[in-house]
Amino acid sequence: MQPPANLPPARDKLLFTPGPLTTSLSVKRAMLHDAGSWHFEFNAKVGWVRDEILRLARLSREAGWETILLQGSGTFGVEAVFATCVPPHGKVAVLANGAYGERMVLMLRHLEIDHVVLRARENTPNNPASLDDTLAQDKSITHVALVHCETTTGILNPVNEIGEVTKRHGRIFIVDAMSSFGAIPIDFDRAGIDYLVSSANKCIEGVPGFSFVICRRDALLACDGHARSLSLNLLDQFKGFEKNGQFRYTPPTHSILAFELALHELEQEGGVAGRGARYRRNHEILATGMKRLGFRPYLDSAVQSFIITAFHYPDDEAFVFDAFYRRLSDKGFIIYPGKISQENTFRIGSIGRIFPTDIEALVLAIGGVLKEMNVDTGVA
Amino acid sequence: MQPPANLPPARDKLLFTPGPLTTSLSVKRAMLHDAGSWHFEFNAKVGWVRDEILRLARLSREAGWETILLQGSGTFGVEAVFATCVPPHGKVAVLANGAYGERMVLMLRHLEIDHVVLRARENTPNNPASLDDTLAQDKSITHVALVHCETTTGILNPVNEIGEVTKRHGRIFIVDAMSSFGAIPIDFDRAGIDYLVSSANKCIEGVPGFSFVICRRDALLACDGHARSLSLNLLDQFKGFEKNGQFRYTPPTHSILAFELALHELEQEGGVAGRGARYRRNHEILATGMKRLGFRPYLDSAVQSFIITAFHYPDDEAFVFDAFYRRLSDKGFIIYPGKISQENTFRIGSIGRIFPTDIEALVLAIGGVLKEMNVDTGVA
Repeated sequence: MQPPANLPPARDKLLFTPGPLTTSLSVKRAMLHDAGSWHFEFNAKVGWVRDEILRLARLSREAGWETILLQGSGTFGVEAVFATCVPPHGKVAVLANGAYGERMVLMLRHLEIDHVVLRARENTPNNPASLDDTLAQDKSITHVALVHCETTTGILNPVNEIGEVTKRHGRIFIVDAMSSFGAIPIDFDRAGIDYLVSSANKCIEGVPGFSFVICRRDALLACDGHARSLSLNLLDQFKGFEKNGQFRYTPPTHSILAFELALHELEQEGGVAGRGARYRRNHEILATGMKRLGFRPYLDSAVQSFIITAFHYPDDEAFVFDAFYRRLSDKGFIIYPGKISQENTFRIGSIGRIFPTDIEALVLAIGGVLKEMNVDTGVA
Repeated sequence: MQPPANLPPARDKLLFTPGPLTTSLSVKRAMLHDAGSWHFEFNAKVGWVRDEILRLARLSREAGWETILLQGSGTFGVEAVFATCVPPHGKVAVLANGAYGERMVLMLRHLEIDHVVLRARENTPNNPASLDDTLAQDKSITHVALVHCETTTGILNPVNEIGEVTKRHGRIFIVDAMSSFGAIPIDFDRAGIDYLVSSANKCIEGVPGFSFVICRRDALLACDGHARSLSLNLLDQFKGFEKNGQFRYTPPTHSILAFELALHELEQEGGVAGRGARYRRNHEILATGMKRLGFRPYLDSAVQSFIITAFHYPDDEAFVFDAFYRRLSDKGFIIYPGKISQENTFRIGSIGRIFPTDIEALVLAIGGVLKEMNVDTGVA
């Protein structure tokens, strides 16, 4: 039962989604300030955030790396890389096995950038050998684009192997690490990454408002004059930061204040390793608990990330996803609504400021909802 | 003197800028919640916000109008209109008398959209007669774009007269009303506006994170297939809202929660009329106080908006703007840093959650800084 509108509940429902996520109260409280977006005190914070992201990636400006923050969602960041960094006669090979790979294709169509798509099935990682063949045959391909963790299903793609092939053929490597950066270690040198895109409201546990691109400075500086959009001009955005430490256009100041604290809290948790360990534990408890309730995971455990997990619908007509979702919401648990996979699956995220006890409570609630709905999952 | 870093001050410095602005504490507190961006409870809020913006504009969906929210700053919203709504062989006449008009030109260059620029001096409103001549001579112009209040100087451009000319010639009219919407009444029908763009962090006194476009539904629906960017595809964004009430891509959920409350607080202040009256009073006290201190306003009062006011630097070498700015910051007042006008002027904003008493305190502080710096403004 929903609480009445005139009697607000004591706390927010927990989000078990791939983001926006449940964040800590302290991160949200960091937004109780208004900052002047052109003021030197705010610019100093922006500079710190840019450096800290590099540190988190085990990179440095000295070694030739940069971080560029960009207003908007993660999609804006990925499109900004394509719009800015692919030359007029460039061609992108997109590795796709889900909605986010397909979204890259949509971007390239809008930008009228030549491209080829290497599709794998949604439950199958992208194939380095097939990329190898394609790059060997088509010398006009200049860039390769990969989604690291495809949150359509939660599958983890082989970023190192794909990167090795890309670099062996001397192409530029673009990685969408939206839902993995900050919790899954990424070795930029080993994977040969030139551009990596992630977002404020994923594993760093900030609030939404901007994305960030980590890139090789030389690669970015070589893109002068290519940008197909002013707002998404990543090189101009970089030059703006270099010139005076400022965003070119109004930044989401409050989101950045929240992100600053979120980075400190990530450090306190033990960085990427510490956060990844909590998310992994969350995922394990979820996987075990859901199995006990009779749910079948969509992916083979060998390719399953600990970020988000897809489960098949129970094979019983009494299971109606919308009713299932709403009953869980009434109990205070928001899972990911609607499916974007081609299969009849639903998804539950393990990331954000949620802990093993929260996952245990979620699994209990799911068991209760199954009973309320008289769903038979084949378990006694 | 700055307070020491380990002893945070009791309150934030006040912002006298064109945005991001000082907002109410209640608006910031509305961000102390995490919302699921695909959740039905959040979607209901997005729907309410979209309708409320139309109500504020004295428009309605029944009469054929729509509001589309777009992630990013106001610039993203303006570029989205160009990127989506100008057909492949369209041509835009840009009326420019400041940095924001010139920014439109930059957008059109990036998008490779044909355009012509009608420039006026920065202290002179855009000229309807010159637009009339241009439109009569160049039948290939399909769109006219105007900045309502050019915050480079604070000049108010004649939106009704420019719109009348545009409509008489049967062209589409695009208005950047970033810093005017919500405080200066705009008659959409009289001005013949097809697309108007504003932003969350201006006169509605929300926090930054998104812009919004108010447009004639028919005009937008006629733009199918033109979009040059996926992220900035305004028509797809509209279709997304129509389909399921959702943003296509992750929205700045916290900024939208803040905006929802900001709209309520605008209503409590008496809507556009009430808010405009406070801002006007702020501006009048500023203008009078600065005159008393010996500052000369850049604009003739006949074309000066009450949003932001530009003042000439005092004619004394002892006045160094950066030192002036920092001393004011130390006293808790952040004015707009740096000039974007071609003239040696600085700017002070009158908008945001600031009151006449705050403006009086600012003027007193400015007087104190002039004394500290031994600046002679010619006043005894």
